[in-house]
Amino acid sequence: MSKQFVYAFAGEKTHGKADMRNDLGGKGANLAEMALLGINVPPGFTISTKACVYFFKNKKKLPPKLWDEVLEHLQSLEKSVGKKFGCSDNPLLVSVRSGARVSMPGMMDTVLNLGLNEDTLRGLAQKTENEWFALDTYRRFISMFSNVVLGIDGTRFEHILEKEKSRRGIKVDTELSVRDLKSVIKKFKTLVARETRKNFPDDPMKQLRMAVEAVFNSWNTERAVVYRKMKGYSHDWGTAVTVQSMVFGNMGTTSATGVAFTRNPATGEKNFFGEYMINAQGEDVVAGIRTPNSIDQLEKDMPEIYKGLVQVYKKLENHYKDMQDMEFTIENEKLYLLQTRAGKRTAASAVKIAVDMVDEGLINKREALMRVPADQLDQIFHPTIDPKLKTKILGEGLGASPGAATGKIVFSSERALELAKKKEKVILVRTETSPEDIHGMSVAEGIITAKGGMTSHAAVVARAMGKPCVSGVEELAINGKRKNCLLGAIKLKELAPITLDGTTGQVIEGKVNLIKSHLTASFTRMVSWAGKIRRLKIRANADTPQEALLARDFGAQGIGLCRTEHMFFDEKRIFLVRKMILAKNDKVRTEVLKKLLPIQRKDFTGIFKAMDGLPVTIRLLDPPLHEFLPRSTKEINSLAREMKVGALGKKIESMSEMNPMLGHRGCRLGITFPDIYKMQVRAILEAGCRMAKKDVKVYPEIMVPLVLHVNEFKIVREFILEVASEVLKKEGVDLKFKIGTMIELPRAALTADEIAREADFFSFGTNDLTQTGLGLSRDDSGNFLRQYVDQGLLNHDPFVSLDQDGLGQLVQLAVEKGRGVKPGIHMGICGEHGGDPVSIDFFNRLNLDYVSCSPYRVPTAILAAAQAVIKEEP
Amino acid sequence: MSKQFVYAFAGEKTHGKADMRNDLGGKGANLAEMALLGINVPPGFTISTKACVYFFKNKKKLPPKLWDEVLEHLQSLEKSVGKKFGCSDNPLLVSVRSGARVSMPGMMDTVLNLGLNEDTLRGLAQKTENEWFALDTYRRFISMFSNVVLGIDGTRFEHILEKEKSRRGIKVDTELSVRDLKSVIKKFKTLVARETRKNFPDDPMKQLRMAVEAVFNSWNTERAVVYRKMKGYSHDWGTAVTVQSMVFGNMGTTSATGVAFTRNPATGEKNFFGEYMINAQGEDVVAGIRTPNSIDQLEKDMPEIYKGLVQVYKKLENHYKDMQDMEFTIENEKLYLLQTRAGKRTAASAVKIAVDMVDEGLINKREALMRVPADQLDQIFHPTIDPKLKTKILGEGLGASPGAATGKIVFSSERALELAKKKEKVILVRTETSPEDIHGMSVAEGIITAKGGMTSHAAVVARAMGKPCVSGVEELAINGKRKNCLLGAIKLKELAPITLDGTTGQVIEGKVNLIKSHLTASFTRMVSWAGKIRRLKIRANADTPQEALLARDFGAQGIGLCRTEHMFFDEKRIFLVRKMILAKNDKVRTEVLKKLLPIQRKDFTGIFKAMDGLPVTIRLLDPPLHEFLPRSTKEINSLAREMKVGALGKKIESMSEMNPMLGHRGCRLGITFPDIYKMQVRAILEAGCRMAKKDVKVYPEIMVPLVLHVNEFKIVREFILEVASEVLKKEGVDLKFKIGTMIELPRAALTADEIAREADFFSFGTNDLTQTGLGLSRDDSGNFLRQYVDQGLLNHDPFVSLDQDGLGQLVQLAVEKGRGVKPGIHMGICGEHGGDPVSIDFFNRLNLDYVSCSPYRVPTAILAAAQAVIKEEP
Repeated sequence: MSKQFVYAFAGEKTHGKADMRNDLGGKGANLAEMALLGINVPPGFTISTKACVYFFKNKKKLPPKLWDEVLEHLQSLEKSVGKKFGCSDNPLLVSVRSGARVSMPGMMDTVLNLGLNEDTLRGLAQKTENEWFALDTYRRFISMFSNVVLGIDGTRFEHILEKEKSRRGIKVDTELSVRDLKSVIKKFKTLVARETRKNFPDDPMKQLRMAVEAVFNSWNTERAVVYRKMKGYSHDWGTAVTVQSMVFGNMGTTSATGVAFTRNPATGEKNFFGEYMINAQGEDVVAGIRTPNSIDQLEKDMPEIYKGLVQVYKKLENHYKDMQDMEFTIENEKLYLLQTRAGKRTAASAVKIAVDMVDEGLINKREALMRVPADQLDQIFHPTIDPKLKTKILGEGLGASPGAATGKIVFSSERALELAKKKEKVILVRTETSPEDIHGMSVAEGIITAKGGMTSHAAVVARAMGKPCVSGVEELAINGKRKNCLLGAIKLKELAPITLDGTTGQVIEGKVNLIKSHLTASFTRMVSWAGKIRRLKIRANADTPQEALLARDFGAQGIGLCRTEHMFFDEKRIFLVRKMILAKNDKVRTEVLKKLLPIQRKDFTGIFKAMDGLPVTIRLLDPPLHEFLPRSTKEINSLAREMKVGALGKKIESMSEMNPMLGHRGCRLGITFPDIYKMQVRAILEAGCRMAKKDVKVYPEIMVPLVLHVNEFKIVREFILEVASEVLKKEGVDLKFKIGTMIELPRAALTADEIAREADFFSFGTNDLTQTGLGLSRDDSGNFLRQYVDQGLLNHDPFVSLDQDGLGQLVQLAVEKGRGVKPGIHMGICGEHGGDPVSIDFFNRLNLDYVSCSPYRVPTAILAAAQAVIKEEP
Repeated sequence: MSKQFVYAFAGEKTHGKADMRNDLGGKGANLAEMALLGINVPPGFTISTKACVYFFKNKKKLPPKLWDEVLEHLQSLEKSVGKKFGCSDNPLLVSVRSGARVSMPGMMDTVLNLGLNEDTLRGLAQKTENEWFALDTYRRFISMFSNVVLGIDGTRFEHILEKEKSRRGIKVDTELSVRDLKSVIKKFKTLVARETRKNFPDDPMKQLRMAVEAVFNSWNTERAVVYRKMKGYSHDWGTAVTVQSMVFGNMGTTSATGVAFTRNPATGEKNFFGEYMINAQGEDVVAGIRTPNSIDQLEKDMPEIYKGLVQVYKKLENHYKDMQDMEFTIENEKLYLLQTRAGKRTAASAVKIAVDMVDEGLINKREALMRVPADQLDQIFHPTIDPKLKTKILGEGLGASPGAATGKIVFSSERALELAKKKEKVILVRTETSPEDIHGMSVAEGIITAKGGMTSHAAVVARAMGKPCVSGVEELAINGKRKNCLLGAIKLKELAPITLDGTTGQVIEGKVNLIKSHLTASFTRMVSWAGKIRRLKIRANADTPQEALLARDFGAQGIGLCRTEHMFFDEKRIFLVRKMILAKNDKVRTEVLKKLLPIQRKDFTGIFKAMDGLPVTIRLLDPPLHEFLPRSTKEINSLAREMKVGALGKKIESMSEMNPMLGHRGCRLGITFPDIYKMQVRAILEAGCRMAKKDVKVYPEIMVPLVLHVNEFKIVREFILEVASEVLKKEGVDLKFKIGTMIELPRAALTADEIAREADFFSFGTNDLTQTGLGLSRDDSGNFLRQYVDQGLLNHDPFVSLDQDGLGQLVQLAVEKGRGVKPGIHMGICGEHGGDPVSIDFFNRLNLDYVSCSPYRVPTAILAAAQAVIKEEP
């Protein structure tokens, strides 16, 4: 391993390159790469992540020789830019920026304009002949350094600034006079002295060292740790620190700073897209403090610069073969690139960009498939506002993240979390968002902000999360204390209904009907490429003909789970179901079952028709019977009246269970009340035969749930066969069907060999397997499971992504045991994990036959299954 | 395989022997053995169980050549006794008796006196010059054959007999005149003709064939099937059929029939013990129809016969080296032995007999240990009535099965089952019991019968079950319809409290305080022999110093499970516990925990003292916190008042869970509320240190429950070590302690290697492992689990005996994984299975270090562990 910690980037004297992101962080590696490409990058150097790793392993001490290396590079830097760090003559200012191997937006810290003190301030003013600029830079430096390095709340500096502005009756920072700025700087310094009981540090070298250590420390702030856990990133990677000579976008009206994307990050359309701000520094754009200009304006304002920028973006996209997100600064009409990276994008945009790039010959299909995060693919189905409706527009902002959302207004993330727990749909309405809002955003249906552009925190994070977002709604004013807001002339209180359209940027009054969006051609092409590569078949979980048709449209190759109980819950049928359950004897029960038979038969008829030619796995009744019974005294009494019996309360109470999840359910019901299962089997097979007679190709797979012992399966199988032989004879159809079982209890997995001898197929019910294998009730684990994941005790929520280390063993064991006695036995997954890309990768490795997931997840699963195959390729 | 189906026993012409019980059944094999020993056995022959197996495998057809073999043997039999089957001259009558390889008392059928019709009846009367005897025999035959072979309810014949007796004003059968008997026989035949629409079969050969087939069929009656399932016997064994020449105990006052034990089956004392009845046949004694005489009376009545019987019993016991249960008949002052078998006995008696036989040199210690069914050993601790009490005796019967019991009267098994489900303690009071009562008896605390002796159904079954029983309480008259009984002059209704003493035979008014019995010297010796042989250590589950002392007395080598929550439930502490749970913030909680600390410390101090020198495994808090909270509105309000807070209802409600078994419990509590665990650890270690300073040898083992991921264990372990270092420093004691975990979730077993790296020991919590591994809630499975076991779907209740086929794999996996990374890691079992001999055998094979069970099960576990070792020996 190299002992080098510091790598320069300065035109030809550049030591790093793009593939060194593990050492140099994404930012450092790409700065080096750009320098090598001959792009105008302010020179600087990057301290390797290895130094950060050392720092945390050695009680926060820097590696012994690091500082010598830094000083050496600082000298070279001084030479290359012709300025001197800490010198009042022609002072070199630097930025000190964090940069990990993966993007952690807004998580870690950066200090700009470092190297200023009263001496160098004077030098800067003299050299640039621009005192205002020097003072503006100094006040920025003091507040940023104080916040990041000294830990003083940044809003306190903003408060001083705002007060100064209001005292002077001006609106924007650039209107502050030299005198105002001096007054502000004085107040800033007083604040620092009061808070730290020390003067603001004057020695630039000390500033640098403090800033480097502060960036290292920012790797382990709570929010960074939480973020990494959420994303599954290692805490051992560490951050690099890039020290770069400053260029200044705040040098007056010939200077600017901006952010641009090589293609549209929201739609993927191939057009240059971005924003910039005259006389500003980078953080002004990102933090959304002023609303910036569109990049198109730059073409008019500074046509030469714009032309240069276009050349750069084309060069970068061609070089990286991916859509780039760039930061640039214009200092006195000269263009500098400060950063480039693969741009964040919506799923729809990712799909369009990848497909377009295949057409453009930039990448191949396999690369294109790897470009789209499978788990975000269903973002594409985000709803839009029904265009037929007349809506009342309350305000307009930027369409920062596509899709529409409707819900109740909340003004804080805490409130959003609180209400989300109660299953309320909320819209988070904020002046602007910060990393502290991530949890609140993640539970909100959508986000509206008063400030900030397309690259503001709210916009970036919302796109990453696939949440609709409207940013920069200027007419919005929030009163957090009083829990209300003014939107133009209209006052809205907390919990008032509101709707937003993140595609158009509109904010709409009240609750509005949303409709699903249509699929694009790019999407369809990408899914079809994936479909040719993936080995796993993808089925859908669907309980109605409508869902079945939807799933089929999305490419489902069958139904992996049709839950018959959802049919029971139907409002019109529930009375019959209840009557059946509470029947005082078998005779009454048989009568009611006779009435339920044609209803269930109709359900299956519709599903078989929808799935003509494809297999349909139907699970016999699974939930405990008491789930179907009424709970309130009123409902119970009304049921008793309808059933013409006395009180039912006691009977219903006697059926309740301490732990229904482990109670009288699944095939246990089939064994104690075989008539219910027999009715269901009859309905399935009668429907199958009748459809078959109409030339529909029917492949029913009857699935027995919650088997713990092969004997249960044998008993149920036996009576299924009895009913079948009767029905098939009566209908005169030689219908082929399968009888299989769910593997959803640890014991079933452990004895899968015995069960495989009897069963035609296995379907792993990984939801229940997670509940029993981990001893976790899905209903009750909310109290501690979130804490477990947040604390990193568990890598992820095991209900979202299969616990491969633990339960994975059990699934693998069952697969091996099953195949051991019946090679080629058909095996699949139903349950949430069937739509989770990480789990799909695991199931692909186990060589299962299919996964089944909700209809909207089918494209995700197809893509994930293709990605799993591509990952396996050498 | 031999093609022979029939084996004769007739003095020297005997083909079978004792070790052929698999073919000949216990009865047939022992009759052959007795014949070989020169004991006077009426000759006959036995049809092998193979014929029965063939019968059921071939649609109930007899093997083709069987009947030829039978006829051949019948001819030899005729020769050897000088009588002819079906001949009116000197007719041979036979008994046709079932006999499986294992005893199935009362389960299968027998027909006596077969071969009678009007012709042979006349011949019998002439030959014996005793018309009364011939008629008495004939009426017995008709009713028995009609019941067993023709399936007519036996009580209908009894009813005719009783009516005849009451018409004639007589009490016992023997007082019936010849004329009465003739009238009875006529009525019997009319009944049969009416019921079967055929005349009673007259052809003796046809009678024989029908009887043989009926005995075969009796192998598969529902009650026999249930019984075999209960006992774990194979349904494929089949029954043998023994056809034996009749001898008659009903030939007048010089004839008798009886049952005798070579030692006392209730106490094990070495004295000849039995009962007989003059002028009766075997079933009169067994069915408990008349109360018989004690065998001592025989010494006075027929001293020569008595002497002969004593010689026989000594010969048999010496030969079999075990206590024998014999049936004999005296026909005209001649003694015949009809059966011998190892006698059923109480656990206390089994222990005494086995130990005595070692002292007598009959068997060795290993044989003695195998003689006592380990799972019955705790019968010995059956309570007795406190001798200091003055009790009111309501009646007296025979002390048929030792131990005292107290409970509410029920008059039917259905009622017993019903109330037992509600956890009521019931005493089953019956005129007599039959095999249909087995379930009722098994849930009753004790059994009282009006009729029947020491060998009646009630007595035999009660002893086998270890239930106290008083039989033959003559002053008891039951009115089943009105649900009351007269006991002497006192009328008792259903649910009235009553007490019985199965040792003295007394029935006592009301509910009476019971005390535990003392241990005998034989018991102590046997347990000490077992202790030297067994490899597994035996610990006890004990939550209090009292239980700990008791366990230690019984030989426990430590405490394997001390449940700290039981301390929390204490009436005096529950308020503090509730206050702690409902604390509005950490500060309040900390204060309450400070108050709980000295209380828990005191608990542990007592336990450590009791277990001086032995390890004590203490489990940190396990159940969900809401289990400690009040449920009724009244209690909740009163708690709120005491706590001086507003309403608590909502908070308590919010803590309730859908599936608490899979909820916020175990170490999940320790992680979300570490202060509770820290308090417990502090209490354990402070108690340990303080006891250590008093020279008590303390070995605390702190156990973390419900670990699903090694990270949970790491977190808890870390803060345990923190608390420990603080406590040990403060107390100035270098106390050694261990930190281990329960393996009670499938995931923990699957990742036992990871956990073993961190843990000092494993304790398998097989209760929860059964719940999660099988997806069975112990609280809710009552509805279907019994049906599962009854139907043979499961071999046994998995909560009673570990599911070796399924969960056993998981336990074995965990053991191997644990040892793989930490050879010799200490491993044990706590939970019900730790006291179950079948499971102990499994744990012994896995080479675990210990099992832990309730204090009263400790001797059982010691014995079972020794038996497991002996079974392994070559």
